[in-house]
Amino acid sequence: MVPPQTRLGLSGDRVLATYAVFGDLDTAKAIASDICEEQTIEFPRDLVVDQEILDGIMGRIEDVRRGDAAGSWHVDISYAVEVSAFQIPQLLNMLYGNISLRPRIRLVNAQFPRSLTAVLTGPRFGVAGIRALVGARERPLTAAAIKPMGLPIDDLAAMAGDFAAAGIDVIKDDHGLSCQPFAAFRQRVGACAAAIATAKEEHGSRTLYMPSMNVPITDVGTAARFAIDAGAQGLMVLPGLHGFDIVRALAQDDSLAVPIMAHPSLLGSYVVAEQSGIAHGLLFGTLARLAGADVSVFPNHGGRFSFSPQECLGIADALAAPLGDLKPALPAPAGGMTVARASEVAAFYGQDVMLLIGGDLSRGDRRQRARDFSSAVA
Amino acid sequence: MVPPQTRLGLSGDRVLATYAVFGDLDTAKAIASDICEEQTIEFPRDLVVDQEILDGIMGRIEDVRRGDAAGSWHVDISYAVEVSAFQIPQLLNMLYGNISLRPRIRLVNAQFPRSLTAVLTGPRFGVAGIRALVGARERPLTAAAIKPMGLPIDDLAAMAGDFAAAGIDVIKDDHGLSCQPFAAFRQRVGACAAAIATAKEEHGSRTLYMPSMNVPITDVGTAARFAIDAGAQGLMVLPGLHGFDIVRALAQDDSLAVPIMAHPSLLGSYVVAEQSGIAHGLLFGTLARLAGADVSVFPNHGGRFSFSPQECLGIADALAAPLGDLKPALPAPAGGMTVARASEVAAFYGQDVMLLIGGDLSRGDRRQRARDFSSAVA
Repeated sequence: MVPPQTRLGLSGDRVLATYAVFGDLDTAKAIASDICEEQTIEFPRDLVVDQEILDGIMGRIEDVRRGDAAGSWHVDISYAVEVSAFQIPQLLNMLYGNISLRPRIRLVNAQFPRSLTAVLTGPRFGVAGIRALVGARERPLTAAAIKPMGLPIDDLAAMAGDFAAAGIDVIKDDHGLSCQPFAAFRQRVGACAAAIATAKEEHGSRTLYMPSMNVPITDVGTAARFAIDAGAQGLMVLPGLHGFDIVRALAQDDSLAVPIMAHPSLLGSYVVAEQSGIAHGLLFGTLARLAGADVSVFPNHGGRFSFSPQECLGIADALAAPLGDLKPALPAPAGGMTVARASEVAAFYGQDVMLLIGGDLSRGDRRQRARDFSSAVA
Repeated sequence: MVPPQTRLGLSGDRVLATYAVFGDLDTAKAIASDICEEQTIEFPRDLVVDQEILDGIMGRIEDVRRGDAAGSWHVDISYAVEVSAFQIPQLLNMLYGNISLRPRIRLVNAQFPRSLTAVLTGPRFGVAGIRALVGARERPLTAAAIKPMGLPIDDLAAMAGDFAAAGIDVIKDDHGLSCQPFAAFRQRVGACAAAIATAKEEHGSRTLYMPSMNVPITDVGTAARFAIDAGAQGLMVLPGLHGFDIVRALAQDDSLAVPIMAHPSLLGSYVVAEQSGIAHGLLFGTLARLAGADVSVFPNHGGRFSFSPQECLGIADALAAPLGDLKPALPAPAGGMTVARASEVAAFYGQDVMLLIGGDLSRGDRRQRARDFSSAVA
């Protein structure tokens, strides 16, 4: 008979997840025990007769201790890496799938063994790769968005051209531009890519254009191919709309081989409630990077949204922290950022940051304002 | 010159969204105004020179009134249907994308014009279609899950065969079964489909097998094709992992033409916080159905999770309510359900329900217990 520890072929490598749970210590321990079952066997453990399933498949409580938030406990639970299938969808499902449906459990940290990061290889370019592409060694990077929705395509393209002429490093579509009748994807992306190419040639800039992949899931592959063929040098992807695995799929696609920017649309509900969801740094930092984002966009503190300075730093830290052999990725604080704040924001994050400004670049002379933005970080 | 109202080609059809916002009335009005911008032009409105963009693209406040929850206001905002691009990703982005990142705004309702439901056509089968497939005219339907993870594939297949022999209407994979080394997708789905086919032939049952599409996003299409070719008669899809548009893509695929069951994994963070996210009925009801789910799984009240009876009824009601010409879909309350509760749960939801039981069917003689479950609803 095959010895039990080899039937499932488990390596012994573990994913370690930390959950903040809320209540008294007994409640915390009971919740921890529930999580171990819920996220793996999802089956009453008294009915499991195979000891190897109990020992190897079910999650294992590693520690329970007082948490940071008042009335919270931090629970460390480890899972056999094989339970994750070494794939983004099942990894997320294992970490937080069903228990997302229970209140008072927040996923606050996760650590991965090298056997996982050998498969989920993260950013193709990372900070250094993006810097090389735009020729910026030691300064914060700049990004701008093409908007508002409803502008004629020629006007959107002219705006893109102005930003490229001003030397903005990355130009992205407004994430709401998808395939509207008045903003047809191919016509729009083609026009913007052409305008940017012309401006780059005239002005010697090295702008990367990253069109939005806000299209039907079945069209993402062809949209990405079209965009690259039309002259785009990157892709903006929306994991809140299409799942985090679309980031992985595009980042790992050797036939595309372009940088990926992750946009936070629809992901807010994972972070805004304090006692449930996923910690800011883990979601927009670690998980976005593990999936393959070279750049992770999130709303900066002090803009239109409510992330705190600490939460924003948590994201930036997670994008840079050691994580297997994964390249660090760039934080892109956005959401109501202004040219006036560029220096302050750059000082806050340090030089490995991509400052993303949208509407504020359209105040006054657009090209001049974009130049001011570039100068402010140079 | 073309008159402004025709440049954008807007039909006048509107999507109407209702948000619960929290604070005093002035705060509520300010938030409502923010939403109108944030979800559409995402641009300072004072910089928009084109009146048609302000009138046609930007959201429009239709009403602000006292809400149900204490200290809440209900804000109706309408959007030109064209802003949604008539597509699930951009529709969700328009309804709640960026404002998901702000606390104290919950999307509680949405109404769609016929021009949208003419494109997003919802369930292919619906309640009547599923009933016809399993030959059950006037009773609640039954569903069972194959689990726990870690069981040898032959044992999983034997379990599936027992459930089919007992006349369970729908058998689904445990949603955590994906492509683990010990649960290889093709071998596992093939074995389960074969065991179910054999049992159906022997026992004259009409069970539908719905394997889980918890695979990399780039493999969903081939996994679905493989499953159907192997003998599956439906697909379980995970919009929390792959986005809601994967439901639409599979439901509208004429080459598959099978019923779709939507599983709630990772979607909990949208509903569990009271002052943010999306209302239960809208997310698991209206939106799942609009995307094309024939069956929507959610955790029943009184099980391992925390949904209230009212929230569960909200889901069931939304799956049945008038929605263009869309077929009604089946609620599938689950999450720690037991055979002992089957009659009670059926009485609560009425006959248009699919009762989903997992581990409890493995207490004692599995086949007999599944027969008891079938009898309890007959």
